[in-house]
Amino acid sequence: MVAVDVMSGEHPPEVYIKGAVNAVRDFNVKMALVGDGEIIETALKKLKFEDSRKVKVFHAEEVIRMHEIPSVALKKKKNTSIQVCTRLVKEGVCEGLWSAGNTGATLISAIMHMGKIEGIYRPALSTYLPTLKGHCMLIDAGGNMDCIPEYLAQFAIMGEVFASRVQDKKNPSIGLLSIGSEKSKGNELILKTHEILKKLDCNFVGNIEGYDISDGDVDVVVCDGFTGNIVLKVTERVFKLMIELLQQEIENNLLQRIGFALMYPAVKKQVYKKTDPRAYGGAPVLGLNGSIVVGHGSSDAYAACNGVHMVNNLIKNKVNDLILKRLGQFGLLKKPIAEDAKV
Amino acid sequence: MVAVDVMSGEHPPEVYIKGAVNAVRDFNVKMALVGDGEIIETALKKLKFEDSRKVKVFHAEEVIRMHEIPSVALKKKKNTSIQVCTRLVKEGVCEGLWSAGNTGATLISAIMHMGKIEGIYRPALSTYLPTLKGHCMLIDAGGNMDCIPEYLAQFAIMGEVFASRVQDKKNPSIGLLSIGSEKSKGNELILKTHEILKKLDCNFVGNIEGYDISDGDVDVVVCDGFTGNIVLKVTERVFKLMIELLQQEIENNLLQRIGFALMYPAVKKQVYKKTDPRAYGGAPVLGLNGSIVVGHGSSDAYAACNGVHMVNNLIKNKVNDLILKRLGQFGLLKKPIAEDAKV
Repeated sequence: MVAVDVMSGEHPPEVYIKGAVNAVRDFNVKMALVGDGEIIETALKKLKFEDSRKVKVFHAEEVIRMHEIPSVALKKKKNTSIQVCTRLVKEGVCEGLWSAGNTGATLISAIMHMGKIEGIYRPALSTYLPTLKGHCMLIDAGGNMDCIPEYLAQFAIMGEVFASRVQDKKNPSIGLLSIGSEKSKGNELILKTHEILKKLDCNFVGNIEGYDISDGDVDVVVCDGFTGNIVLKVTERVFKLMIELLQQEIENNLLQRIGFALMYPAVKKQVYKKTDPRAYGGAPVLGLNGSIVVGHGSSDAYAACNGVHMVNNLIKNKVNDLILKRLGQFGLLKKPIAEDAKV
Repeated sequence: MVAVDVMSGEHPPEVYIKGAVNAVRDFNVKMALVGDGEIIETALKKLKFEDSRKVKVFHAEEVIRMHEIPSVALKKKKNTSIQVCTRLVKEGVCEGLWSAGNTGATLISAIMHMGKIEGIYRPALSTYLPTLKGHCMLIDAGGNMDCIPEYLAQFAIMGEVFASRVQDKKNPSIGLLSIGSEKSKGNELILKTHEILKKLDCNFVGNIEGYDISDGDVDVVVCDGFTGNIVLKVTERVFKLMIELLQQEIENNLLQRIGFALMYPAVKKQVYKKTDPRAYGGAPVLGLNGSIVVGHGSSDAYAACNGVHMVNNLIKNKVNDLILKRLGQFGLLKKPIAEDAKV
């Protein structure tokens, strides 16, 4: 069963309830709708969906808003929709969750209740980046600021497993984001991570540059969360900058304006669709006990439906089990602290 | 006098000689042409330019190629064009130089011969990034991989001086590149740099995100060279990705292809011109004893002319003097090591 935080995001709960119901119909997944019970029951009635074997309702009175400071809000409130969602996963009622709420609060609540998979240093926020050939995975996209090589090595393998199991890529290629393709290029973190990755029996193609991401030849782009967050935002923004600059330029030229109008369907499809996080539903957080996808704040019913689909794929394809297996196989799991000190 | 490394870049020396001669004519700057003496003399004759008060020729037999490893090449060869250029600045014959050669070799040779300005931790490579309102400065764009807050604070002020003296911006705004605008957002390096910058009497606007660069509201974007290099390359590449995706999309649609053709002049102007490093001539390296601009490998005569113009602006506007003054005023100069230990 997948928990859906219907109180999250910028839209009213009805929107996410509709998305969740669509997912039940499309992907035959069982759903726990979390939020104001009365609103949910009314919405389900309106949608003529009352199959209680497939949809259960879990009441949560409160919600954490986008502008709230996660740590403060989570201390003050105890029964918010995101806390109920993560507790449902902790208690085994659900196996995963989707929320479009405050990302920080979602991550902290998930770590507190669900916890990290044993042997994982840090869970990683991952996201899709547009390329010439479709999308690649960027990991970490903003979860972890200051990283050590061991974190990045785990991110690489978590991304590899996601790409193979959820994106159906065969033997996914892994690239380490740096300033040049030579293994001597990069900062200390990258040089040391390169040394770890090159010894593994996986499809590690070495360092890649900022230029290379868009070509789409690499399936998984590995970096720390600081760099990843900046790459993600620069990419999204530059796409739109191009269009804005073109519009500035053609303003006083009728012929060029006609040209733009003729081309607009292509612009819309490529620019807006390709960078539209709704199309895949959100960013998976890998490395936690449970499957979790964080939707963009602007998510709508379409995003919610796709997000639940991704959570369901993570669960169905046993992504966490394979992550654990691959990391163990490569000797990359974190050793328990002072295990030999226990008597 | 400005030294021009005519053996650098991907074009034959004649191209850069022509660019340099154009700069002499356009900006009335004196020039030292460095490279194969015979080629230079012949080219000058062909250009009907033989005013020896304005152009001097300095022979250099060898050249460091793009693919060579800088440290190795600089040890093996002693009289390459870039070494002659940097020695001319060291000896006071020239006050600055322009080269489109191997960036690593240029930087090492410049640091070896010209040296850092006293009190500067690290020279910074800086570059222009396209924005909605023109261009902003990105500093460091790839010179320094692992940085400490004190480096970044100096980069901020060096960028500020460049923006005010060379780009003629009044009270340039400085933004610290991070993952969120709140001062609590970012990695350790950013949090600590923020603390230093916020105390200075300059136009520090705080943290900015990857989204914000393109808006053009910030004149100087400060980051470490690892992040900066990736931002620069992602920005350049995503601009072109957009066009490539559009071309893919319209391939089978005649109407959209006509639209693209009508709009093409605008695309060319905005996409290619806006991201064309030839338009300003290259990336200034700030913090060295002397003024230095590194051109893109693909630089042509137009780039060389603009590059020399930028070097000339750095010299004329006493950018180095003002950098030293501002850093001293803010207490940001590096203290000499163990000065009190000297007897």
